Amino acid sequence: MSKAHVSDAVIRRLPMYYRHLKELEKAGVERISSRELGERMNLTASQIRQDINCFGGFGQQGYGYRVPELRWHIGEILGLEKQYDVIIVGAGNIGRAVANYDGFRKEGFFVRAVFDVSPSLIGVDVHGIPVQAMDKLDAWLTEHNADIAVLSVPASQAQATADRLAQAGIKAIWNFAPVDLHLPEDVVSNHVHLSDSLHILTYRMNEEALFREIEEKARMNGQEQD
Amino acid sequence: MSKAHVSDAVIRRLPMYYRHLKELEKAGVERISSRELGERMNLTASQIRQDINCFGGFGQQGYGYRVPELRWHIGEILGLEKQYDVIIVGAGNIGRAVANYDGFRKEGFFVRAVFDVSPSLIGVDVHGIPVQAMDKLDAWLTEHNADIAVLSVPASQAQATADRLAQAGIKAIWNFAPVDLHLPEDVVSNHVHLSDSLHILTYRMNEEALFREIEEKARMNGQEQD
Repeated sequence: MSKAHVSDAVIRRLPMYYRHLKELEKAGVERISSRELGERMNLTASQIRQDINCFGGFGQQGYGYRVPELRWHIGEILGLEKQYDVIIVGAGNIGRAVANYDGFRKEGFFVRAVFDVSPSLIGVDVHGIPVQAMDKLDAWLTEHNADIAVLSVPASQAQATADRLAQAGIKAIWNFAPVDLHLPEDVVSNHVHLSDSLHILTYRMNEEALFREIEEKARMNGQEQD
Repeated sequence: MSKAHVSDAVIRRLPMYYRHLKELEKAGVERISSRELGERMNLTASQIRQDINCFGGFGQQGYGYRVPELRWHIGEILGLEKQYDVIIVGAGNIGRAVANYDGFRKEGFFVRAVFDVSPSLIGVDVHGIPVQAMDKLDAWLTEHNADIAVLSVPASQAQATADRLAQAGIKAIWNFAPVDLHLPEDVVSNHVHLSDSLHILTYRMNEEALFREIEEKARMNGQEQD
């Protein structure tokens, strides 16, 4: 039972728990021990128990967790029992892919409007919604609700657009631009850094050769010093 | 100077270093201390030095890091001085968004082919490349090189498609399907879990209210026990 400062590592694992528990529930598994869940997720049993205890703890010693119950609790912790009104800002490839992704609707995320600065995109249909000019944003927000803005503009415009969204009253930004945003304290955000993810992949592709080289160099430096 | 087991946390930070150093270089900054770089990245100076020392260390005590040199070294560590042939497997919204993303080409990632199982997509043009049937994959790979496969198929088909890619000789998978893949040891992968990222955002939106509730509940349980 702890205060509002759950570590980022725990927060990052919560959606993983949710995914695995959903799969287990689908497979008809009714209960699971922290050891079994840990094996599935490459975590230790004690890590699992610690993580879940951050939010009050829902298991029974020696019995394990009831899968549907824990899945429901984690969903509640993640705020997934609610519905969210979403606007998309930037109707390029990524913005359109997000708007067209049917999975979101199933999870309670509803795209209500799409905005872009480019005159050539205004009026274009994105998943049944005509793209509006960015300067219609404030007027639109006085009449409609938006819980989340998907920020899918080019990197060079990301901070200025985020500032504008914050000024317009948006409190949550899902950022696809490859930029770390500076936002007012009451605006939350999370970043999907696609290029970071690709760079981690190329790192893994090259890791072995890299360390062979580093070791080789170290050996040669060692010999020089002899 | 250390062996090939750099922690996941360090690996996750490498692309962040690269991004910040690229921005600094663009802004004409020639050198930076670990303290200044740390402030930019929300890390301590000693964390920065430790991270960079995993790969041999490139700074001078009391002088800091030369920005262009360190950017170049981190790029090399990430394998970004190379070019990569990429195939896209799954020509839905995400696959098409990746294929159309011009930034990749600038970074040395070249989309060479696009595959899909859906007959209605075969022949459709994606960024100048006609979509091919999945059963053409093996034949295509005997004649062409593919360093990376972008896996952008539905969750239900992800593992089977990944197995097929691994059998066909693919050694690196950039996975957009919301599934943790099981792959042979010599195949590396990295996941872009879009829904995980969205769930972390909704967690942050709800965190304060959640902990008010948890504390309230704890208080009430405490009173009951009195």
